[in-house]
Amino acid sequence: MSKIEDVVSLCKRRGFVFPGSDVYGGFAGTWDYGPLGVILKKKIMDEWWEFFVESREDMYGVDAAILMNPKTWVASGHTATFADPLVECKECKSRFRADKIADGINESVSTEEFLDLHVKCPVCGKENWGPIRKFNMMFSTHVGAVLPDDAGDLAEKSIAYLRPETAQGIFTNYRNVVDTFYPSLPFGIAQQGKAFRNEISPRDFILRDRECSQMEIEYFVKPDTWEENFEKMRGIFHEFLNEKMGLDASLIHELEVAPEDRAHYSKRTIDYMFDYPNGTEELMGLAYRTDFDLNNIARESGKSMDYRDKVTGETFVPHVIEPSIGVERLFLAVLSNAYTEDMVGDDKRIVLKMPENLAPYKFCVSPLLKNKIELVEKAREVYVLLREKYSNVTWDDSGNIGKRYRKQDEIGTPKCVVIDFDTLEDNSVTVRDRDTTEQIRVKIEEL
Amino acid sequence: MSKIEDVVSLCKRRGFVFPGSDVYGGFAGTWDYGPLGVILKKKIMDEWWEFFVESREDMYGVDAAILMNPKTWVASGHTATFADPLVECKECKSRFRADKIADGINESVSTEEFLDLHVKCPVCGKENWGPIRKFNMMFSTHVGAVLPDDAGDLAEKSIAYLRPETAQGIFTNYRNVVDTFYPSLPFGIAQQGKAFRNEISPRDFILRDRECSQMEIEYFVKPDTWEENFEKMRGIFHEFLNEKMGLDASLIHELEVAPEDRAHYSKRTIDYMFDYPNGTEELMGLAYRTDFDLNNIARESGKSMDYRDKVTGETFVPHVIEPSIGVERLFLAVLSNAYTEDMVGDDKRIVLKMPENLAPYKFCVSPLLKNKIELVEKAREVYVLLREKYSNVTWDDSGNIGKRYRKQDEIGTPKCVVIDFDTLEDNSVTVRDRDTTEQIRVKIEEL
Repeated sequence: MSKIEDVVSLCKRRGFVFPGSDVYGGFAGTWDYGPLGVILKKKIMDEWWEFFVESREDMYGVDAAILMNPKTWVASGHTATFADPLVECKECKSRFRADKIADGINESVSTEEFLDLHVKCPVCGKENWGPIRKFNMMFSTHVGAVLPDDAGDLAEKSIAYLRPETAQGIFTNYRNVVDTFYPSLPFGIAQQGKAFRNEISPRDFILRDRECSQMEIEYFVKPDTWEENFEKMRGIFHEFLNEKMGLDASLIHELEVAPEDRAHYSKRTIDYMFDYPNGTEELMGLAYRTDFDLNNIARESGKSMDYRDKVTGETFVPHVIEPSIGVERLFLAVLSNAYTEDMVGDDKRIVLKMPENLAPYKFCVSPLLKNKIELVEKAREVYVLLREKYSNVTWDDSGNIGKRYRKQDEIGTPKCVVIDFDTLEDNSVTVRDRDTTEQIRVKIEEL
Repeated sequence: MSKIEDVVSLCKRRGFVFPGSDVYGGFAGTWDYGPLGVILKKKIMDEWWEFFVESREDMYGVDAAILMNPKTWVASGHTATFADPLVECKECKSRFRADKIADGINESVSTEEFLDLHVKCPVCGKENWGPIRKFNMMFSTHVGAVLPDDAGDLAEKSIAYLRPETAQGIFTNYRNVVDTFYPSLPFGIAQQGKAFRNEISPRDFILRDRECSQMEIEYFVKPDTWEENFEKMRGIFHEFLNEKMGLDASLIHELEVAPEDRAHYSKRTIDYMFDYPNGTEELMGLAYRTDFDLNNIARESGKSMDYRDKVTGETFVPHVIEPSIGVERLFLAVLSNAYTEDMVGDDKRIVLKMPENLAPYKFCVSPLLKNKIELVEKAREVYVLLREKYSNVTWDDSGNIGKRYRKQDEIGTPKCVVIDFDTLEDNSVTVRDRDTTEQIRVKIEEL
């Protein structure tokens, strides 16, 4: 597999991903998707939506606001516990996530445990630490007519947060969906959208950014059916990752999260780990969350989260299976899975072996020579014809044909269609295959 | 045309739009899109993307981060001038946008001008006002490891904003797109995404919310061709609104913005006004922004925004035509344009006469009677068949057939397919038309 630097370099060079606010020297933890990145990201998100929502009768979509009533985060526990251990070097004032600069500790490390490890400051090399403090990762802002010099209570009351996950936008709409659509159990509510986390040290390209897109489903089930529904969901996510995203099954590993590492309310969690070029990292999570969230909302809102069974008349709070995936993690998995370096004759080439349903362009059409007007005209004809049939066809008449092939290989275009002098005679074109580099002659009408 | 309250009520009743954070009593200025709202919103955004980006060779998409380097907003002028006039009643401490509680003044009203109008406080009825203060509408937050008790400089330096428009995410990527794709002029960069404005008084349903989705294009042209490109863009936006969004041309009015009302850098601006049920409001804007933004970025970043003409070798900063549209404004225009009350026999009905390409469902399939197993089975067969052909087919076996028609009319489903006892004999079904309510018999294979 490729090195991560190669993938990052390809992303920038070919217009998949640029550093956020690049023109101003960047902005840590943010990334901008360029013209090809937008196409790939949209295809990934649309495939997920089609697979899990549109094609199913038991799924309902929502698109909740990013700014939510702050009670949401009290109920969910984020206000109290969504925090990382922050430590400051008293010498140089640098700040770090304690568990990232020392081995063998986790987020709940105490000041004493940390000091016992005698860590040196990664910036100044000294060992003079302040106490460990809890740093809440939610971005806060003020909503409403509050001025910078408003003090105390007024400012306090106006605080709201950028949602740190899309899940709570689903749970808070459970009551609305049930009361409007009367779904039978099991049913799911799905959402795609942005979430924000103020990472102390954003890193690993788009894997640990401050702004990400999530695709989450809360799947509501009868309490005594959670195991079978968990197993079903577990299976179809593998199907989605393999068949729709083209990810090699051998690169995905299930990690059964041990009871002591699970959130206290979860009875079972599986992390789907992916072998990224820079190491194995979480790609998605599947968690059984019991009735934890709906009960929290019932308590905080005073409203009933009961579901009434249409057949038995029984009332209860449904339990929840949550598959949660980050678009950026999937985006990078698709790219690094596809990234290949091989030899064509004596030349090394880079090629993105992406599945056809995700490749930004299906076809690239070009004239063999760009200064022969009759070839260009014929090629434009073929180009227009193909664009009528397929939505994603690109045109390339830059450089020479060899350079064009290399460029199209790097952006993952499965087929290059080349119009040459024979085309003018027999109406056939050369079709070159991205993966094998084989070229065949095909009649235009058979394209 | 319908009253706005009727449209809002339909939106909530049928699962198009719910108040944001509804379960917690709402959160001012935010709205959540329910299962049908998500479908409609996605169709609107996808149609725009297909029409203006995918189907054109001169358009490049980007998807920039919401959190941008704060220099962005210094360069664009938002830090200094993106502000509303805030006034506080000294008696009851209520705060208002001055120009919204008095007639005949605008955003640049002075304290003296306002006091001269002798406005009474809309809350307590007294007249005892503080000075007018500029309230910046950008939401601010702190990015990075800054704790609540960090004072002064550290907190100050970490301030960033939620973008108040998507446009600057396009301009800041101009250099990257030019250097990666070498586009010929004219070309455009397009973006869809969230933008945030801390409205002092959010109102008018989804028209003036604190969080909205924008669809913007910056179209870069040779300076001396701006007029022809402006005219072209002007025409194709009418085409899009009429043909793709189904909006009646008679409800759209061009408002040529007078020189004294235009932004100082703009040489021409047209607002496309739409007759909403609660009054005529801006639907979208088309502005000629000259080279104002690129020059600002060049100054603030120290980088050249020059474009080098491939043929003449001439270098210059391109000029910009900007069509900008809010998804929520378009969403409400589509819904209120479609909302119709008419009589079917002696019964009043509500029907959404939406164009087929935007209706959440194209077909609704249902058995005439839900307790006749043979009808239900046959109907499921037809349902499965149609779902294979079309992505958006719904099933309904609730209530009686009359209620189902009313429900499908309210959500804009163009055709209801009903399976009855004759179907079992002759394999034909009843197809009912939403707009005419006419019913015809059609063979299943001809659906």
